[in-house]
Amino acid sequence: MRASLKTINPISAISLWTFSSQLQDFSQPNPSWSPEMRKFYDHYNAQCDTDTETYENKTGPWRKLPSYNRSIKHATGGIYISKLIQAKARLFTRSVNEQGATFEYVAFFNKEEKICICLFQPGHLLEGAPGHVHGGAIATMIDTVTGTLAGYLSGPSVTANLNINYRSPVPLGSVVIIHCALDRIEGRKTFITCKVTSTDESKVYTEATVLFVSIKLGSLFG
Amino acid sequence: MRASLKTINPISAISLWTFSSQLQDFSQPNPSWSPEMRKFYDHYNAQCDTDTETYENKTGPWRKLPSYNRSIKHATGGIYISKLIQAKARLFTRSVNEQGATFEYVAFFNKEEKICICLFQPGHLLEGAPGHVHGGAIATMIDTVTGTLAGYLSGPSVTANLNINYRSPVPLGSVVIIHCALDRIEGRKTFITCKVTSTDESKVYTEATVLFVSIKLGSLFG
Repeated sequence: MRASLKTINPISAISLWTFSSQLQDFSQPNPSWSPEMRKFYDHYNAQCDTDTETYENKTGPWRKLPSYNRSIKHATGGIYISKLIQAKARLFTRSVNEQGATFEYVAFFNKEEKICICLFQPGHLLEGAPGHVHGGAIATMIDTVTGTLAGYLSGPSVTANLNINYRSPVPLGSVVIIHCALDRIEGRKTFITCKVTSTDESKVYTEATVLFVSIKLGSLFG
Repeated sequence: MRASLKTINPISAISLWTFSSQLQDFSQPNPSWSPEMRKFYDHYNAQCDTDTETYENKTGPWRKLPSYNRSIKHATGGIYISKLIQAKARLFTRSVNEQGATFEYVAFFNKEEKICICLFQPGHLLEGAPGHVHGGAIATMIDTVTGTLAGYLSGPSVTANLNINYRSPVPLGSVVIIHCALDRIEGRKTFITCKVTSTDESKVYTEATVLFVSIKLGSLFG
């Protein structure tokens, strides 16, 4: 079964990007971004369906996805799940405040194509092998971006399988593009493919397939 | 080919745990550890071949592995790889100073059995789905601990494939045990299996297989 656009549900309590005008969007450009990061941001931002600054409608295939530091803050549907609200808890990829130190990224969603792309600039606190990004930090970004795409296409979902082939180590301080695409939907299962490349796409650093299973919110909330 | 004990090389420049008496060992108990974390630490520590405090020899199958916040600090063999020494770079799992906030863990190695176990207490900055640990943070710990075992058994290695099945979400603030074991070594390939369980091992949260490929250090250093 292919997901119809009707099933796209951008507002879910477990979406990694929740929506609220009162929250800071951590995916806006900041001074730590390299000229290359900024250049590719401008490239995709110019092709969006909404102006990031004015919220006015434009014509374009992409939508910039805001990114907050809580996965749940204002639960939708009026449900206040007190036992899950831990005041200090922060989304892993947005939990360090220092700009440029860890995960600098911005994602764009193309609903026609059922794809997501993410510009990722890994900071100096993500080191694994000397001078290179930790495999776990790459896995974290793959899980995050593919999970966002799965959430948009199939609603609230959890990661069931993450299978990553590391082709080449990613140098700290580089900018890479994470490309995610819907492979197929089978019942509650959503299969997403993912590729991490250099910005000119000539070099493939990582390839992955990720399986998500859609859930009822109650199953997480006990 | 099975790895002989002679091939175990505990000191490697890309080992995630390097050895130097001048560095702080971040895997020592601290006040953020829960009584459960401390209890299991004491359990394994009592069965070690060296006293953690006095460095005196004891009789026991386990060795506690120290954990620093740089993957390279004092390159062994007298090689100073200046272009890779980034003063601010820190190992991903040890890059946040606040005790208890991110990755609290300690690993033990059993060279006879060719296994590693790691006690892991995930902190509030590792959130993914509400109230639960981010899949990427679990992947990070799996990569880290299996990579350490691969390093001890096969020398300097990089992750080639990481295949993770997430069976059940891990609640923030719990303590889990990461069990890693050598599956087999084929030439330059080292296959490690991994399981993340509750401390009583009744619940399996995650299962994984990880493939490492041993490298010459020069291939990373360009």
